Amino acid sequence: MNFRLEQTKQILQQTPSTLNSLLGNLSNEWVSANEGPNTWSPFDVVGHLIHGEETDWIPRARIILQHGEERAFDPFDRVAMFEKSRGKKLSDLLVEFEVLRATNLEELDRMNLTPELLAKHGKHPELGIVTLGQLLSTWAVHDLNHIAQIVRVMSKQYSDAVGPWKAYLSILNVR
Amino acid sequence: MNFRLEQTKQILQQTPSTLNSLLGNLSNEWVSANEGPNTWSPFDVVGHLIHGEETDWIPRARIILQHGEERAFDPFDRVAMFEKSRGKKLSDLLVEFEVLRATNLEELDRMNLTPELLAKHGKHPELGIVTLGQLLSTWAVHDLNHIAQIVRVMSKQYSDAVGPWKAYLSILNVR
Repeated sequence: MNFRLEQTKQILQQTPSTLNSLLGNLSNEWVSANEGPNTWSPFDVVGHLIHGEETDWIPRARIILQHGEERAFDPFDRVAMFEKSRGKKLSDLLVEFEVLRATNLEELDRMNLTPELLAKHGKHPELGIVTLGQLLSTWAVHDLNHIAQIVRVMSKQYSDAVGPWKAYLSILNVR
Repeated sequence: MNFRLEQTKQILQQTPSTLNSLLGNLSNEWVSANEGPNTWSPFDVVGHLIHGEETDWIPRARIILQHGEERAFDPFDRVAMFEKSRGKKLSDLLVEFEVLRATNLEELDRMNLTPELLAKHGKHPELGIVTLGQLLSTWAVHDLNHIAQIVRVMSKQYSDAVGPWKAYLSILNVR
């Protein structure tokens, strides 16, 4: 499938409500569980998504539009949420994410992106030259990647509880 | 985490609304895409979940309660949905799944499962002896497994669109 702005926005629009449905009524055992030392819980993932809304996707789109490949993106702090989310409740984080995402999608609309602008180059500090279209595609797949992570982390809490069925459940056999 | 009935029901309860949020507003390109020959689209997965509600989880729980390990479960047809879903719309399937799941969770409540009943043995046609608690744990993890599958299938449609970022997106590098 080639990148298309409308299709990409469909993915970006569903994530807040999907996370609300998935996590909003779970007991804390599910929400705070992780995969062991230095791994993330569903709570941590939502904090990471919030930090992305604040410092990654739209700020990088702005840099591409304003500076092209002449100014590299600021590096993204993948673990900033461990500090930022401290003491917060998941319900607060879910609302925070929902508001930020809606605001960012409004800004995306205001950018009035044409095929020419979507092909514009930017400079990633590690990956080198990328396009605005690739950035927006990555924003969407990054959401899906973290939904997959959340359900994997939750599943693994029941690795033993499923007994012999573990052999049939591929999600229990991936990292 | 040990199996607990209430926690397991929390997972089972969220799946219909999560699938509605995730898929309900997507264009058909996302919903009908798969990973190549003999793989499933998000549409196929929802049909598979419906067939599980009809023939797998609660019917097997009934068999355990009534017959214990003396009567093996009927084998589950993993691909029945290719025939059954034909000609239907995703929106119909999502409603169908929601109704079936709600009905099945009501029946689960009416079973008044005690720790003794949850430890009761059943006989899986391939896996051998399993417990009712393991069956219910598997029901929940099976939901999560298929949510992971749906977001993986969708992600892969953008494997090329993300450009160099593919290296950072683990979901694009698993089968």
